[in-house]
Order: sequence, then C-alpha cells, then structure tokens
Amino acid sequence: MGGAPFFQMNPKMPHQFYIGIDIGGTNTRIAAVDSNSNILLKKQFRTFEFPSGSEFLSQVSFSINDILAEINFELAGIGIGSPCGNYHTGVIDAPVNIKWDRPLNIKKVLSQIYGVEVNVTNDANLAALGEKAAGKAKGLDNFISITIGTGLGAGIFVDGHLLQGNIGFAGEIGHLTVDPGGRHCKCGRRGCLETFVSASGIVRTYLKELSNQTLSSNLIQQKIENISAERISSDAKSGDQMATNTLKITGEVLGKALANMSIAYAPEAIFLSGGPVGAGDLLLKPTKKSFYQNLIKNLEGKIQIDYSYDQSNELALAGAAYLVRNDQQLVMENTL
Amino acid sequence: MGGAPFFQMNPKMPHQFYIGIDIGGTNTRIAAVDSNSNILLKKQFRTFEFPSGSEFLSQVSFSINDILAEINFELAGIGIGSPCGNYHTGVIDAPVNIKWDRPLNIKKVLSQIYGVEVNVTNDANLAALGEKAAGKAKGLDNFISITIGTGLGAGIFVDGHLLQGNIGFAGEIGHLTVDPGGRHCKCGRRGCLETFVSASGIVRTYLKELSNQTLSSNLIQQKIENISAERISSDAKSGDQMATNTLKITGEVLGKALANMSIAYAPEAIFLSGGPVGAGDLLLKPTKKSFYQNLIKNLEGKIQIDYSYDQSNELALAGAAYLVRNDQQLVMENTL
Repeated sequence: MGGAPFFQMNPKMPHQFYIGIDIGGTNTRIAAVDSNSNILLKKQFRTFEFPSGSEFLSQVSFSINDILAEINFELAGIGIGSPCGNYHTGVIDAPVNIKWDRPLNIKKVLSQIYGVEVNVTNDANLAALGEKAAGKAKGLDNFISITIGTGLGAGIFVDGHLLQGNIGFAGEIGHLTVDPGGRHCKCGRRGCLETFVSASGIVRTYLKELSNQTLSSNLIQQKIENISAERISSDAKSGDQMATNTLKITGEVLGKALANMSIAYAPEAIFLSGGPVGAGDLLLKPTKKSFYQNLIKNLEGKIQIDYSYDQSNELALAGAAYLVRNDQQLVMENTL
Repeated sequence: MGGAPFFQMNPKMPHQFYIGIDIGGTNTRIAAVDSNSNILLKKQFRTFEFPSGSEFLSQVSFSINDILAEINFELAGIGIGSPCGNYHTGVIDAPVNIKWDRPLNIKKVLSQIYGVEVNVTNDANLAALGEKAAGKAKGLDNFISITIGTGLGAGIFVDGHLLQGNIGFAGEIGHLTVDPGGRHCKCGRRGCLETFVSASGIVRTYLKELSNQTLSSNLIQQKIENISAERISSDAKSGDQMATNTLKITGEVLGKALANMSIAYAPEAIFLSGGPVGAGDLLLKPTKKSFYQNLIKNLEGKIQIDYSYDQSNELALAGAAYLVRNDQQLVMENTL
C-alpha cells in the first residue's frame, strides 16, 4: 500500500476524499485518505497539550482546515477512532489516558462544522477496520483483530460486518472469563482474559510464576514497580528463563481463549497487534500451539493466526477513513 | 400473531407468499406463510417414512404442489430449517436423527423445480429466525436464541443480522469451553457447555451429584439407562431433592455461560427453548441468578432472559419463511 498516485482513485467517486482521525493517549493524527485507502496527507499533534475537550476540538478543526486548503477534492466524510469512542452515540466517553473534563460529542460538532457524515469508534475496532481497509484482512469477511495493550481489545468482523451489538459492547472479549474464580479484574469480576493477556496481566503472571517455579531470572534485581511487559519481553529474548516461561503461559491462555472465540465467531483469520506482540515467536508459538490443541475439529485447518499488517499505526488512519467510507459504499452498492 | 386476514398483507408485495419447511427427526412440516408471518396453510408428514433423500424430496414436492394448487398467490421463495442444514451450501449434511443415505442438496433441487430463491439453515438458527419473525424478538436487533435438546444450539442476531461466519459455524456455542479439562464431549474436546446443558448433560450432572451429595432421590429406583432429563425435570417438580439440585447446577453453568456470551455478542435479550426448559423456574431461576452474578457491570439491567415465545414449534415455520423473505426485503429496502 501507499504511494499510489491520485489518478488511481475509484472512478465512480472522483474528486472525493475522507478524513481519518486516530486519537491516541500521546498523539492525535489526522489524514486525508482516498477511496483506495492511500494516505494523501497527514497532520499530527500532541493530544495532551489540550487539557479541555473544546481546546482539543479546535486543534482538530484547524488541522482539518489545513488539509482542506491543500487538497482540491471534495470531503466525503470523517471517521474517528479513539479510546472509549462510541459508534452509537458519536461520543468519546471517559478515556483513562486522556484527561478531558467530560465526554466529548465529537460526531455532533464535526458534522455541524463540515456538513458531512462523521462516524466514531473505539481504538480496538479501528485496528480491525484498518486491517480490513489496507492490511491482511482485505477481502476477508470473517476475522478477529486483537490489540494487546493496557487491556485486551478486539474488533470482530462476521459476514463482512463489524459487530457492534447492544450499546456497542459486542466483542469486548478482554472480559471473557477464562479462569473462573481466578484473578481479580478491575471490572469487578474474576478470571477475565485481560487479567492474563495484557501488559499488566503479563507482569502478574511473572510474579505468580516467581511464587510457583524455581527457574532463574535476572529480573529479580529490579524493583517490582519497574517490572513491565516490555522488560519481560526483552529479557525473554536474552534468554531469561522465568520471562520466557511467562510469555509461554500468556500464549497458552490466549490460545485457549482464541479457540473459544473461534466457536463464537467462526473467523477465517485472527490478527494480533500491540506492544506485547513484539515478543514475536516467544509469544506467538505457544499461542498457536495452544490454539490448535483446543480448536474444535470442524474448524481445523480453516483459521490462521498472524501478526497484524503493521505495528506502525499506519493502518489506523486508513481504518478511520474506511469506517465512514464503507457505510456510504454499502448504500451505493445496494442502490446500483 | 395469527389470525390476520389476507387483506392485511404488505401492500408492497401483493399476491405473494412463502413456503416455510421445518424438517424434524419425527415430523416434516410445510406451510404457506404470508409477508406478516401468518400461517395460511399447513401440511405435515413423518420424516422417517422416507428412508432415502430422493423419496423424501418427492414427498416435499408433492406437499408444495398441493399448497400451490390451493393458494392463488405467487410463490416468492422457499425457506428450510433442518438439523445440519447449511446456509452456505444449501445442503442438509448428515443429521444424526434422519437416516438418509447421503447429504441432500435440497436448495439446488427445489430452486430448479420452482424457479424461486431457496435458503437453508440449521434448526437452532430456525428458532432464532422464528423468534425474530413472529415471537418475542420482533423489533430486536441483538438477541440470542438458545435451544436445549440433544445438544445445545443457538441462533444469534447482532446488529439485525443472523451470524453465519466461516463455513456457517458462528454461534456453535454448545462447544464453548466452560470447564477446562472437565467432562469429555463427543466433539473430542473437554468441558464443553453442552456436556452440562443438554438432555444428556443433565443426566450426567444427576449421576455426578449422586456420587457427590447425600440428598435423597426416588430416581435411584430406576435403571440408569432410563434416567432422562425429562424424568429428572418431572421428579424435581414432585420435590425430588437430587433432581432439583441437578437443575440448579445446570442453571448455574448456563447462567455463567450466558454472561460470557453477553460479552461476546452484547444482546438485548436471551430466549430459551427446548425440552429441559419445560422444568420452568426450577431451571430458569438459578440460571438468572448465576447470569446476573456473573454479568459485567456495563451490561447490568440491559439484558433480559426469558422463555421463547412458544414451545409448540409454530415459530419454526414462520422463521423458515422469514429466512428467504428477509434476504429479499433487504435488497428491496436498499433499492427504494
């Protein structure tokens, strides 16, 4: 992807482009995206420089205006992905990492300013949309995109459709129970998947295994508060036994959970992204092994597990644009 | 529902009707259904009287011809529900309860004979379609229909769409792992939901509890091979302690599984049907209690658990017709 010249744009929709916005805890990125998911132009600023929602929105609007001044095509829609972005209400609720004073009705404001369709979704769905628009899920109707970070998020396509469900809650699989009566989760329940498979879950498993195993570990020279999933991953790569064992257990739990999800959603592929996936085969190999051991026979040989197309977040911008473009295309295709 | 005269039919589609076919292990029922899910006319014959697929198909065709002779409207489509009915291939594979010699390509044959659209699905999806067409799920976009029988089947609507997934396998939740390393399942894995919540699962729980508890039970006077879920249910209603305890445990397992499914699919309602549901509150109360105890906070107060609209299978015929009618309506609505 990338680099295709403008004249390759879809001839059915000439002179149109979309704005894709990826709001992160650190950076907010805004891009002009064509109908083939090519990024035409990109702006970026620090999210936390704007402590109130209204200041943040002003900066978003400045960036969009800059883009409009530089691109002659017609703006056809705006798609936005953000932690706690809600598709049904168009509101960004209360993201933990972004300290705005109150929920932000970004859909309402931007659609009033620009007079185009504006759609909002959460960051986990954004990853799935990016995979579908410009990544490894192009052409796939059934797939799961898993993002492992502070928690575990997922975007799930079934029959070509991104699941939303009641109050947009479908696919919040970080809270599937995988160990009944097990670890306490911040959701108030116990044994949720993300108490194992998340940055903090990996640290918890490391500590649990220290209490359980007799393997050696250089990480014990660190303060406990400095133990991180990133550190466990890098030490595992250097051969640390306990760190390696921690990733193995994480993969085993994830693999079993993916086998269960495969029964729920029947995907053709599962794509993994997020920091801890940087551990590579140390995490992916035990994940796959456990997945195939627990998969039901009917689905044997029908599901691949793979890394996401990229870890550089380029997909997120294409995904945000796709969020609004796809809704419009569905209407167009059905009226032809 | 029921009883509405013909002239109330959808004026946009005058003089049209659908054939709905519900193939069961005992009876096959064939009905003419109007666009408002009213049953206009019904035929029925014994499925097992036709040991080969081609003889069975001839009888289906005779019945449809009878209906065509009696109804003056135009046939607009045929919808079929059957154990092992496959939406993607249109084939009825190898249902355990119907002893045909080989898979039956009923979609191909009937669409060639009648020149209309023919769609096929499995019996669990049929129950969900019936609930949506004429039952308690009218107007709901997100719901789960659970049928407890020999196994545990489900039909799942998310965002107004009945999930199919890769090879039509989405929502085969009888095989969700609820007790890792637990009871052996005929699928070759262990701890599947239907090893607890199914007719045979209930018997297994009864036997397990005999080994575990000291409660009294009149059922021990029976031969083991005569112990059935139906018998456990009726004895529980008569106050048998062990039978009552068995249903309580069944409900607890089901409730937990439904809480997990709610995270996967985010339904507004869950409807239960099938023989063991006849136990009434003895099963439903512990199910609800366990469900609400295990439900994640975000979904509290947003999901109801209820019996299906009816246990008389009337919904199945309306559901079969809806299977083909809805596909056609989606096209119509989008082209208006």
